[in-house]
Amino acid sequence: MALSEFELIRSYFSHTGPCRDDVVLGVGDDCALLLPPSSMQLAVSIDTLVEGVHFFPGTDPESLGHKVLAVNLSDLAAMGARPAWVTLALTLPHSDASWLAGFSRGFSALARRYGVQLIGGDTTSGPLNISVQVHGFVEPGKVLRRDAAQPGDLIYVTGNLGDAGLALLHVQGGYPMDAGAEEVMLSLERPEPRVDIGVAVGGIAAAAIDISDGLLSDLGHICRASGVSATLQLTQIPLSIAVRAYIEEGGDWAMPLASGDDYELCITVPQERRETFESLANKFDVELTQVGTIDEGSGVRVVAGSGEAVTVTRQGFEHFYD
Amino acid sequence: MALSEFELIRSYFSHTGPCRDDVVLGVGDDCALLLPPSSMQLAVSIDTLVEGVHFFPGTDPESLGHKVLAVNLSDLAAMGARPAWVTLALTLPHSDASWLAGFSRGFSALARRYGVQLIGGDTTSGPLNISVQVHGFVEPGKVLRRDAAQPGDLIYVTGNLGDAGLALLHVQGGYPMDAGAEEVMLSLERPEPRVDIGVAVGGIAAAAIDISDGLLSDLGHICRASGVSATLQLTQIPLSIAVRAYIEEGGDWAMPLASGDDYELCITVPQERRETFESLANKFDVELTQVGTIDEGSGVRVVAGSGEAVTVTRQGFEHFYD
Repeated sequence: MALSEFELIRSYFSHTGPCRDDVVLGVGDDCALLLPPSSMQLAVSIDTLVEGVHFFPGTDPESLGHKVLAVNLSDLAAMGARPAWVTLALTLPHSDASWLAGFSRGFSALARRYGVQLIGGDTTSGPLNISVQVHGFVEPGKVLRRDAAQPGDLIYVTGNLGDAGLALLHVQGGYPMDAGAEEVMLSLERPEPRVDIGVAVGGIAAAAIDISDGLLSDLGHICRASGVSATLQLTQIPLSIAVRAYIEEGGDWAMPLASGDDYELCITVPQERRETFESLANKFDVELTQVGTIDEGSGVRVVAGSGEAVTVTRQGFEHFYD
Repeated sequence: MALSEFELIRSYFSHTGPCRDDVVLGVGDDCALLLPPSSMQLAVSIDTLVEGVHFFPGTDPESLGHKVLAVNLSDLAAMGARPAWVTLALTLPHSDASWLAGFSRGFSALARRYGVQLIGGDTTSGPLNISVQVHGFVEPGKVLRRDAAQPGDLIYVTGNLGDAGLALLHVQGGYPMDAGAEEVMLSLERPEPRVDIGVAVGGIAAAAIDISDGLLSDLGHICRASGVSATLQLTQIPLSIAVRAYIEEGGDWAMPLASGDDYELCITVPQERRETFESLANKFDVELTQVGTIDEGSGVRVVAGSGEAVTVTRQGFEHFYD
């Protein structure tokens, strides 16, 4: 790599995000030095994106810079934590100024939007691999955990589901798309972390998770951690026009329920707090949909319009006999 | 990858290190939740090791597990911070149970020794790449920064310098070695972070840095950050028997001064605190050597026995005319 680590960090990342009062020392020493607020819990999450696994070779670096931060902020959102600091471990095959400028632009724009300061990192040479760790704060009484769902809770999701999966299928050449292609592609390339909603509903909602592996799988995590079951109403799943058209063509309900990369939130809410929750969550320009309920038992059950349990497959759904 | 991320983390890393009281929620939710002590600053550092760049393909996984944590703990040591939590972002070409068991063994043994709990991570498939972020605490008045050296300070280093560089040369086939080979190889494969010393001398020492790129380079960082110069006494540089023998053969003083991977500490100490410093630092079973002094000006100057400035090269040292 032609540029030294120090020069690389300094030239592309020194103006990333704001200068926060709680950062005593940022990039440039052996460690960053930070002042976490004393009454809050510190929430941290680390995620890696690997070329050829999580994104295609040649992906627009600005989108990549956005996405690698967005998927991490999404984890903070799912805990109800307000983002504060970020570190970046960047492994690059070679030092490419235009790639770095683009990556830094996408990363920095999102960091600024959420008041997140880059406090440290490491740059090395090797196959493209990007690890980002985010740090945020949450009041102890406002944490959204996976294990806090209770029978009777209502299940909500933000946004639409399946757009990122459909975009991936489209890019892979498996689905031609005219109407709505641009919006659907944005969901894959520039997912918007639901930070504002996650922070707003802490203390009101019960459990939350971000939908990175598909609603069925991620809601399953809530059910296992909480010792409860969930019932989803198939007809209530929020769909974009493009995903709705796609399902009408081939019946593939797995697209909104089991494809990944949505980065929407799945939130459970005690029934008696429904109104408070909705009034808090609806302050932001994000669709909010009740898609089911939490019950006793275990597992995630999907019911169709008729009220009968169905199994969802790539080919549609089948009645489920148990 | 055959094992899911969850199974992978759970099976190999669930017993890593201690269960700390300040961890509200460890591995298993969207974020870890932590309770930093209110009177301390939080120190964080992230470092990446890449196969083929930082270590040879086929490196013993247990050594690798040790080293990737050790190099990060070394950064905490250089700030005077006591280690607390660690996250691990592990990218693996395939899920190899024996590799993971070995890696986890080396990582966990070191983590336990320093009371560090694994609080989160990510496992992905791809070319072998390991990012570790460590988190520690330091009292505001006990921080060791790079920019705190003052003219008149004495310069100390821990341990011996050049062992890891010589081990690398040996492994690459460039230097046959009989006596002392085992000890020298340990320096490369199992560096010992100088955490105890770093924590002990906070508030007494002035500046510190860990020697990862060679003393000349890392002391240069202290000089630039502090706006001072440094003079090193060549004859005072602490050398193992093996490195001393190597220098006697070919005159290569760059080995102890400019080869990397030592992970010893370079510490500057005000003269009036010399005794206090030495009594604190000498409680641990680590050699401590005064190698020079901080002065006005800029740059790092090396003087030989005669007191004349010399330039250090792979071929030895030359008198330096300025």
